[in-house]
Amino acid sequence: MTKLNLSADEVLTTTRAVRKRLDFDRPVEMSVIEECLNIALQAPTGSNGQAWHFVVVTDQDKKDKIAALYQKAFAAYEESPVQPTKLHGDDPSMKETQERVLGSAQYLAANMARAPALLIPCCTGRIDTPNLPAIALSSMLGSIVPAVWSFMLAARERGLGTCLTTLHLNYEKEVAELLGIPDDISQIALTPIAYTKGTDFKVAPRKPLEGVLHTNNW
Amino acid sequence: MTKLNLSADEVLTTTRAVRKRLDFDRPVEMSVIEECLNIALQAPTGSNGQAWHFVVVTDQDKKDKIAALYQKAFAAYEESPVQPTKLHGDDPSMKETQERVLGSAQYLAANMARAPALLIPCCTGRIDTPNLPAIALSSMLGSIVPAVWSFMLAARERGLGTCLTTLHLNYEKEVAELLGIPDDISQIALTPIAYTKGTDFKVAPRKPLEGVLHTNNW
Repeated sequence: MTKLNLSADEVLTTTRAVRKRLDFDRPVEMSVIEECLNIALQAPTGSNGQAWHFVVVTDQDKKDKIAALYQKAFAAYEESPVQPTKLHGDDPSMKETQERVLGSAQYLAANMARAPALLIPCCTGRIDTPNLPAIALSSMLGSIVPAVWSFMLAARERGLGTCLTTLHLNYEKEVAELLGIPDDISQIALTPIAYTKGTDFKVAPRKPLEGVLHTNNW
Repeated sequence: MTKLNLSADEVLTTTRAVRKRLDFDRPVEMSVIEECLNIALQAPTGSNGQAWHFVVVTDQDKKDKIAALYQKAFAAYEESPVQPTKLHGDDPSMKETQERVLGSAQYLAANMARAPALLIPCCTGRIDTPNLPAIALSSMLGSIVPAVWSFMLAARERGLGTCLTTLHLNYEKEVAELLGIPDDISQIALTPIAYTKGTDFKVAPRKPLEGVLHTNNW
């Protein structure tokens, strides 16, 4: 592993959702994953609670089983109204991007088991406890997602690709049983971890800030 | 504004929750905030939905009113079981850190209105819609919190300090009315934005990775 020596801004603007450019044939050292996780631990948590857990799956049989559940969830997602090509219907300029996102996601779903490692970040407590107020949800998720994104950014600096997914949560219970995750723990996401094919990633096209920035008044 | 030219790892490990070292007397240019927000827009979102909004408050009267609500929420938080010094009771080595966190949080609560700008990131849809499954929650929050953390990291690179808070969400409705935020939008957090007094921030003490890393099995 050699670091890419990206600047802060470069890593923040070129850490893409990597799917087709994951190199499934190159092993990933556990030491690099741990290095990224140690950086992730520097992310903030509410009241400095640090109520997080990180499950790394490298066992092929377990990856196969998780990937099979992911594929099942993906098949339903493809038919759902939140699928990429169903969004931004009001903006024809987004059509091509959304079709590319879907194609890329289909590729990942078909190949998830080939990733050298899968990371499932978790937080303590159930986020789906009935009637949790918005503040509890923002506080719980806001105390794990920064660490997840830090992990992905640190991974990018080390030539690794990641992609934040949530579809396996449709089978969270099955995955919890497979990995021995306790009942009072919430899985938050799943990302494959693999070195990338090449390290030249471009800034993504995004809808302009003007449409989503509100100063003093909505 | 001059950039600090931090490395990717430096920015990820030294972006602290800044409270006592916020410089309330130095104005923050709106152009720098916009620069950080444009970097934030490069964060990932589920299905590339980009269903985010960013409210920046610089108007003193509005900051005063938000800060007053924050203080009210903080007073209740100080008595609550999730307050910093009530956590990590099983680990006496954390006592000093948690007392420092509380003291720092008290300072911020008392001085929130003095920050040159407040940022309230939002997502479309209500995260507290009854009976949302875990996947919907992780997907909604996972599509805004990375952008918020990116904003904070980009701010750090520019000498700005931030601190991710959620307490004002106890008065989300009042803040929504004050700022004209529509009913179907969820506020996610609040962070003050100010230049920092000095830019030498150290890596934070954290509980070790060994206690929260699980490989193939919990």
